[in-house]
Amino acid sequence: MQLFYNKFIEGRNITLSRDESNHCVRVMRLSTDDIIYITNGKGTLCKSRITKPDKNACETEIIEAIDVPPERDCSLHIAISPTKSIERFEWFLEKATEIGTDRIIPLLCKNSERRTFNEERLKRVIIAAMKQSLKSWLPEITPFVSFENLVKKKFIGNKFIATANEPHGNNLGSLYQKGSDIIILIGPEGDFQKDEVKLAQNNGFIPVSLGKSRLRTETAGLVACCDVNLINLLH
Amino acid sequence: MQLFYNKFIEGRNITLSRDESNHCVRVMRLSTDDIIYITNGKGTLCKSRITKPDKNACETEIIEAIDVPPERDCSLHIAISPTKSIERFEWFLEKATEIGTDRIIPLLCKNSERRTFNEERLKRVIIAAMKQSLKSWLPEITPFVSFENLVKKKFIGNKFIATANEPHGNNLGSLYQKGSDIIILIGPEGDFQKDEVKLAQNNGFIPVSLGKSRLRTETAGLVACCDVNLINLLH
Repeated sequence: MQLFYNKFIEGRNITLSRDESNHCVRVMRLSTDDIIYITNGKGTLCKSRITKPDKNACETEIIEAIDVPPERDCSLHIAISPTKSIERFEWFLEKATEIGTDRIIPLLCKNSERRTFNEERLKRVIIAAMKQSLKSWLPEITPFVSFENLVKKKFIGNKFIATANEPHGNNLGSLYQKGSDIIILIGPEGDFQKDEVKLAQNNGFIPVSLGKSRLRTETAGLVACCDVNLINLLH
Repeated sequence: MQLFYNKFIEGRNITLSRDESNHCVRVMRLSTDDIIYITNGKGTLCKSRITKPDKNACETEIIEAIDVPPERDCSLHIAISPTKSIERFEWFLEKATEIGTDRIIPLLCKNSERRTFNEERLKRVIIAAMKQSLKSWLPEITPFVSFENLVKKKFIGNKFIATANEPHGNNLGSLYQKGSDIIILIGPEGDFQKDEVKLAQNNGFIPVSLGKSRLRTETAGLVACCDVNLINLLH
């Protein structure tokens, strides 16, 4: 199955973007009448036939449109401070997309070492991971949000903040309620500051551990993502 | 806490290896009377004092030796086909060490694209991850083992083989028994061949899924590692 991404799917025909056309026609060497799949990343998957294999604007005709249900009955939001090494953050984005998450919120904390990133580049990493894992749901990555703004924002569901100082008994897996929408905050390399944890608690966030190990930021994000997906699979 | 690795700890003094001495004296600029921690990766952690800060052979004296208990009551073995991209496999090793695993067995399957690796380099990745996450237990990485030899080898505990074709209901998290020693087989980029799955089943391995997503090899290994650690944390 060859999966391509097109943000908008309307009508009976889809013209792929320049990047996707290039990948389809030049890299994959697909041509007229070849069958490809195109998703809008919002649960629509179209089985399509190539009608004009143009490497800048490949035209296709939809044969069948399929509604793909969301992967979980609940929504998983991971608010995470991007790592100093952007490579480690990109790795997190790839894995979170593969394993399954709905929204990634880059978090600006007091100890955050990285305070900028190339949004377009990160979106490309997520799109590539979605295509690779043949998903039809694209995780959203938002612009940077300050810690204070985020914790004060309304969120209906389970609210957690991962901290290294929490006893192992209070782990995410034990406290998260299966089927609930969830937001979890993951701190920067130097962890959250104490007053940040306090502010989160005052706004209804529960401090949790992610197990017995001292984890890097991107690993903590990954473990949170795995834990929520697993709990939702268990009987 | 500055953690260093020394394979052998005997007597009252430890002389660090060339690599570790260089890191201690030249990179970290530690000197006489500075306190460092040294582990043998087998559960012994020594609080030590630098007596001779030589960048080729740093000498230390043990102040206190601490026995660090294993992270789990049970043993986790992940047998995994190394990925074509060695970088992806190194990521897996780093993360499996951080999150916690006991033995990694590079698996040679029919579809394996990578059939060699630099054992010393991979060991260094694991040692670095152990030090970074301040652990005193070093995961073992074995030489390559052929699929056939591995599945026929005796293993007392839960035995699983992860395959993409298994229904999501039969997932690792639901079938693994908390507290049991476990070995799980993770296939190469092209997955296991059907006769390999059959051979594993004939030798007592249970086919499992790792959730609803189509995962890359290294991601599958990570999810298995997370799942077993989480199940052992749950009440």
